[in-house]
Amino acid sequence: MIKKLLVANRGEIAVRIIRACKELGVETVAVYSEADKDALHVRLADEAYCIGPTASKDSYLNFTNIMSVATLTGSEAIHPGYGFLAENADFAELCRECNVTFVGPSSEAINKMGIKDVARATMADAGVPIVPGSNGIIKDKEEAIELSNEIGYPVIIKATAGGGGKGIRVAKNETELLKGIAITQQEAATAFGNPGVYIEKYIEDFRHVEIQVLADNYGNVIHLGERDCSIQRRLQKLLEETPSPAISPSKRQEMGDAAVKAAEAVQYSGAGTVEFIFDHNTGEFYFMEMNTRIQVEHPVTEMVTGIDLIKEQIKVASGERLRYKQEDIEFNGWSIECRINAENPEKNFMPSAGKIEMYLPPGGLGVRVDSAVYPGYTIPPFYDSMIAKVITYGNTRQEAVDRMKRALSEFVIEGVHTTIPFHLRLLNHETFVNGDFNTKFLENHDLTSKSE
Amino acid sequence: MIKKLLVANRGEIAVRIIRACKELGVETVAVYSEADKDALHVRLADEAYCIGPTASKDSYLNFTNIMSVATLTGSEAIHPGYGFLAENADFAELCRECNVTFVGPSSEAINKMGIKDVARATMADAGVPIVPGSNGIIKDKEEAIELSNEIGYPVIIKATAGGGGKGIRVAKNETELLKGIAITQQEAATAFGNPGVYIEKYIEDFRHVEIQVLADNYGNVIHLGERDCSIQRRLQKLLEETPSPAISPSKRQEMGDAAVKAAEAVQYSGAGTVEFIFDHNTGEFYFMEMNTRIQVEHPVTEMVTGIDLIKEQIKVASGERLRYKQEDIEFNGWSIECRINAENPEKNFMPSAGKIEMYLPPGGLGVRVDSAVYPGYTIPPFYDSMIAKVITYGNTRQEAVDRMKRALSEFVIEGVHTTIPFHLRLLNHETFVNGDFNTKFLENHDLTSKSE
Repeated sequence: MIKKLLVANRGEIAVRIIRACKELGVETVAVYSEADKDALHVRLADEAYCIGPTASKDSYLNFTNIMSVATLTGSEAIHPGYGFLAENADFAELCRECNVTFVGPSSEAINKMGIKDVARATMADAGVPIVPGSNGIIKDKEEAIELSNEIGYPVIIKATAGGGGKGIRVAKNETELLKGIAITQQEAATAFGNPGVYIEKYIEDFRHVEIQVLADNYGNVIHLGERDCSIQRRLQKLLEETPSPAISPSKRQEMGDAAVKAAEAVQYSGAGTVEFIFDHNTGEFYFMEMNTRIQVEHPVTEMVTGIDLIKEQIKVASGERLRYKQEDIEFNGWSIECRINAENPEKNFMPSAGKIEMYLPPGGLGVRVDSAVYPGYTIPPFYDSMIAKVITYGNTRQEAVDRMKRALSEFVIEGVHTTIPFHLRLLNHETFVNGDFNTKFLENHDLTSKSE
Repeated sequence: MIKKLLVANRGEIAVRIIRACKELGVETVAVYSEADKDALHVRLADEAYCIGPTASKDSYLNFTNIMSVATLTGSEAIHPGYGFLAENADFAELCRECNVTFVGPSSEAINKMGIKDVARATMADAGVPIVPGSNGIIKDKEEAIELSNEIGYPVIIKATAGGGGKGIRVAKNETELLKGIAITQQEAATAFGNPGVYIEKYIEDFRHVEIQVLADNYGNVIHLGERDCSIQRRLQKLLEETPSPAISPSKRQEMGDAAVKAAEAVQYSGAGTVEFIFDHNTGEFYFMEMNTRIQVEHPVTEMVTGIDLIKEQIKVASGERLRYKQEDIEFNGWSIECRINAENPEKNFMPSAGKIEMYLPPGGLGVRVDSAVYPGYTIPPFYDSMIAKVITYGNTRQEAVDRMKRALSEFVIEGVHTTIPFHLRLLNHETFVNGDFNTKFLENHDLTSKSE
């Protein structure tokens, strides 16, 4: 087992990783930017070192400083969390060169999934359903026109190096197609240094359903069921749940099998997530992308499977074999996560940094809070605005929803605006309660004020 | 379903009950003494009313004032929590007379279990194992001597009206027996207004193992497994866990069956606990007493069964039938509870009331906190000193223990002394880790300072 681990992250995920390490008896090394010297992850770790100024590029993205701390402290492994260096193949490669274990998949697996048209081709080869579209990068106008006529409009133009909602454009006809390709290529060249674009059929009415996978270094891969992340605002997930109200046990098995195939195709290792477009009208699903890291919403899976995903990541990185076979995995009850951001939902989700004057998280049965704030903590305006994840568990979806409403209504955060009022409106919305929604739910229902 | 419920208690159990009500959509009415006007249960309830001065007898034990608030607010039910009025048959009877539902068993059941020699006789009749001893109250010296010779010394002399470790005396021979009876009778007459005593075989080396039962108003009774509460200081439980490291599945079933018989014998209704002396040398167990209320340590049972005991109490009190049959009950994983008291373990557990300057409860996977304090809250010196219950869940005992150590080490409570350092010493003690201890563990191992 790894004896000492450096956590190359901040906020709640750094705290989450430190907690798992403490329970495993693994020593922890925190790193922090100058803005984060009073952060909770710094206080909880066994050791903590400043790695640079406030800007992420100078601190949390600073390869050299992070690797220096790892070397100087004798850390055998680095856990990147999510964001920052988590899907950076070059950093994973640097770790390998420096003989430090990167808690995550190989740089090859990161690369294969990170370059979108490569991932698409790899998935097609592996027999994972993909959205009808081009085989690789579009070569010229003629190919684009022919292909779009074949699959039918609307189509979506995607930059192969894009991601997170960037470098994407929808075309409803040939004129829009040609214009869209030109603009997207130009933007992608500037933003990502890679002008390549490809085309897919545009599916408008779908749910975002993703499958958690877990793999070891010996080719064993299992899945841990789905998460429904259809509640999004501008492609940012705000609430996630498992199981999905739209997925039957047989569909779960089918999608789980596909996700395992996807992971196997890139010799995946550790915890990862295969995201699918789920067409709830037809029951068809298509590979969207694979996140080669732990995700923000991993806790809901932990609640229904009883498996501590961070511990499993560390065990796999330590060279242990998976202790679970697919048939050992049971799904019990229902779990929901709400991401609580320091934002003002009534002012277009404007970030609300500042000092938390009073803080009392909810407690009691079936309520879990993953957070890195405390009473008197000042939220720095430089990083992401998520300040807490509230996760509830119930025997049924109704119980999980009722418990979430109870938990959020007793959550005291004074001094900054939060998205709690927004979440309470969402949890009381009939369409949400019925479970029958797609990724456009928040576009179609204005929950940003008390009006709806 | 009950629509409005008065919570006749304070502290964490009042908060616990209010949380369950909110999740069920039941309106809540809090009551409070003058000392508790800033208490969390007052803030969380839908309505709150002062019921008298600080002294419990004038407020939380004040029948008239509590019933007046219930009547004035239109509360259909009263939940007594634990302590205060929870096992007061007269109050249960008053509720019946006033047509307010008492969330608990009938006054008859409370009485049958509250008078110890009656409970003993009732259990013997029902076929529940009891410790060898007298049939009812000892009539004279001769009977006491003859009986003690028959069952063998040491014996224990108990006041029938006693409880909670009061009115109890051990005798190792005839001289001590006669002296002990005389003193106990005198004390009991003064303290409880009832001089009756009875004799039992004194079992010295045992574990405290109790069974949770759940019953409805229609004669359906199930058990929810055991809790091991052997870690006690002066008969006060400090740490509880389920399952017990000493109980096999077949023993669980045997003790569970006995507990169900015990409950059936008094037409029990609601949640209750049958406490047993478990002789871990022989595997024999004997009825100790039944607590006719919810217990402090109920959460560990909730963690491994997934059943919300407070919700079940309210549903049963509403006239619903049990939704579970015995065969539906599954036990998954391991759960431990530590009672965190505002006491100084290094100064003989001296109470440490005062203002909590800083408060940050632990969070993350498998950690539950039931508490009624907040940053800036002043702990009043008038009531019990428990300020939080930390409950952890793990797939194994080891994981639950490791998680508890992690949770307690990150728990921030500044301004008062707490028993957290004591609990951390306990959790690291080899005998505790091995799970092989009896109720004398804390007598035999001094964990009150850093010495051991």
